[in-house]
Amino acid sequence: MNQDQLFEQIKKKQSFLCIGLDSDIKKIPEYLLETSDPLFSFNKEIIDATHEMAVAYKPNLAFYESLGSRGWQSLEKTVSYLKSKHPEIFIIADAKRGDIGNTSNLYARAFFETMHFDAVTVAPYMGEDSVKPFLLFENKWVILLALTSNKGAFDFQFLKDEGSGNQLFESVLKTSQNWGTAENLMYVVGATKAENLEGVRKIVPDHFLLVPGVGAQGGSLQEVAKFGMNKKCGLLVNSSRGIIYASSDSDFAEKAYKAAWVVQNEMKQLLTEAGLIN
Amino acid sequence: MNQDQLFEQIKKKQSFLCIGLDSDIKKIPEYLLETSDPLFSFNKEIIDATHEMAVAYKPNLAFYESLGSRGWQSLEKTVSYLKSKHPEIFIIADAKRGDIGNTSNLYARAFFETMHFDAVTVAPYMGEDSVKPFLLFENKWVILLALTSNKGAFDFQFLKDEGSGNQLFESVLKTSQNWGTAENLMYVVGATKAENLEGVRKIVPDHFLLVPGVGAQGGSLQEVAKFGMNKKCGLLVNSSRGIIYASSDSDFAEKAYKAAWVVQNEMKQLLTEAGLIN
Repeated sequence: MNQDQLFEQIKKKQSFLCIGLDSDIKKIPEYLLETSDPLFSFNKEIIDATHEMAVAYKPNLAFYESLGSRGWQSLEKTVSYLKSKHPEIFIIADAKRGDIGNTSNLYARAFFETMHFDAVTVAPYMGEDSVKPFLLFENKWVILLALTSNKGAFDFQFLKDEGSGNQLFESVLKTSQNWGTAENLMYVVGATKAENLEGVRKIVPDHFLLVPGVGAQGGSLQEVAKFGMNKKCGLLVNSSRGIIYASSDSDFAEKAYKAAWVVQNEMKQLLTEAGLIN
Repeated sequence: MNQDQLFEQIKKKQSFLCIGLDSDIKKIPEYLLETSDPLFSFNKEIIDATHEMAVAYKPNLAFYESLGSRGWQSLEKTVSYLKSKHPEIFIIADAKRGDIGNTSNLYARAFFETMHFDAVTVAPYMGEDSVKPFLLFENKWVILLALTSNKGAFDFQFLKDEGSGNQLFESVLKTSQNWGTAENLMYVVGATKAENLEGVRKIVPDHFLLVPGVGAQGGSLQEVAKFGMNKKCGLLVNSSRGIIYASSDSDFAEKAYKAAWVVQNEMKQLLTEAGLIN
């Protein structure tokens, strides 16, 4: 999927919502544990209930890996289900990978070829050759960690480089401009650091940003839109727990629908105010 | 496994060799593709041939993930085989994981509970709460990326913090001292940057270092030992391609044995010169 196609979806669905499939075997309704593949059963119901309001889904790999190869099977089935039923939806592997060149190439094959994700989150610590192999796949995306939503972000991401005066996350944004374009590179910028979005937008005006941290982590959607939105929206705002665990009972899919609807409605208003939809 | 037990193994085997199981379906001998689980068949033969000379094995997750859930099955079988046949051997998941706290906790469960790895490599970019969940498991280890062996290491790891004067990898070493101890935290320091090992040792005199980059990537074992060895050896030096792909033919296990023997013999000499073994 390219940037224009993604923006078309956003306008069509009047939404820039990404639903995080942080599907935890310990949190899903108990009756699903009796199905042959509980995580997939859960995801399927969530997708069926929410797909009209989501432009993207983002399975978080840790939740699947915690079940070993069985969890990977649930993940593969989820991606296949999405691709066959809703080929217009953007699928992000929230995997935070990154290794030396030949190894990153294999991770890219895993997510883009063996499975059919559209994007994968990548950690920048190991630099250019750990990121570039992911950028060689046509119409596939790297979503590079820049400023994360967690407390630990303050440990290193704000360290200020003596030479350039850039904070580390700014160096990541600037240096990575040489590796990819707004057509294959997005950035993770946490909603809990919305005050930094203005500065981020000065460095990367045209790139899409994947924004976690709205909802359970406390970030504000209005703030994110105010400082982060660009002329093609440029935002995918993620919500995980607030939607998929809106209820822990058998009505979880219906409650997920309602929770997604509330967010999508707010997004519709923000897109309208920005003049991106009528 | 604790630090003393690891050192005991090093003295007993007269080796600080870690063999990297970068087992690539495209590189293993063709006749193995006819077995029901080619990657496991390959690993089993490598392990059978080399286990007397290796104190650690390090499967690189990308190689397994590139095959999807099937690859994860090969990985699970490899870890089970090692744990049942050679419980004294230290097993490292080279996974370079790291995410917000609740997600890192799930990665830790994946590697330490669902599978039975002794250690997992973790990327430091997201800071304390992305690393700490891994440190809560008794006798399990985090191996934190500090200074990697690849060219991209120069993009960010050497940026000098204006406030402290530390380069980023030094900040990672220093800050993480507050998160764990020499009993549950090691660091990745590439052999291709052996000149930095002296400085690293000043910051972390007692911690084990996992050193990739000897062999195919050009690092020198003598240099690594000269600058990196401490009184409990403190080194696990990894070799992957130089050993497991010493031959691409049906004699691959025999040639792997010989390649491992050469490295182990050099290590024996270095341990003797350091007075750690007789």
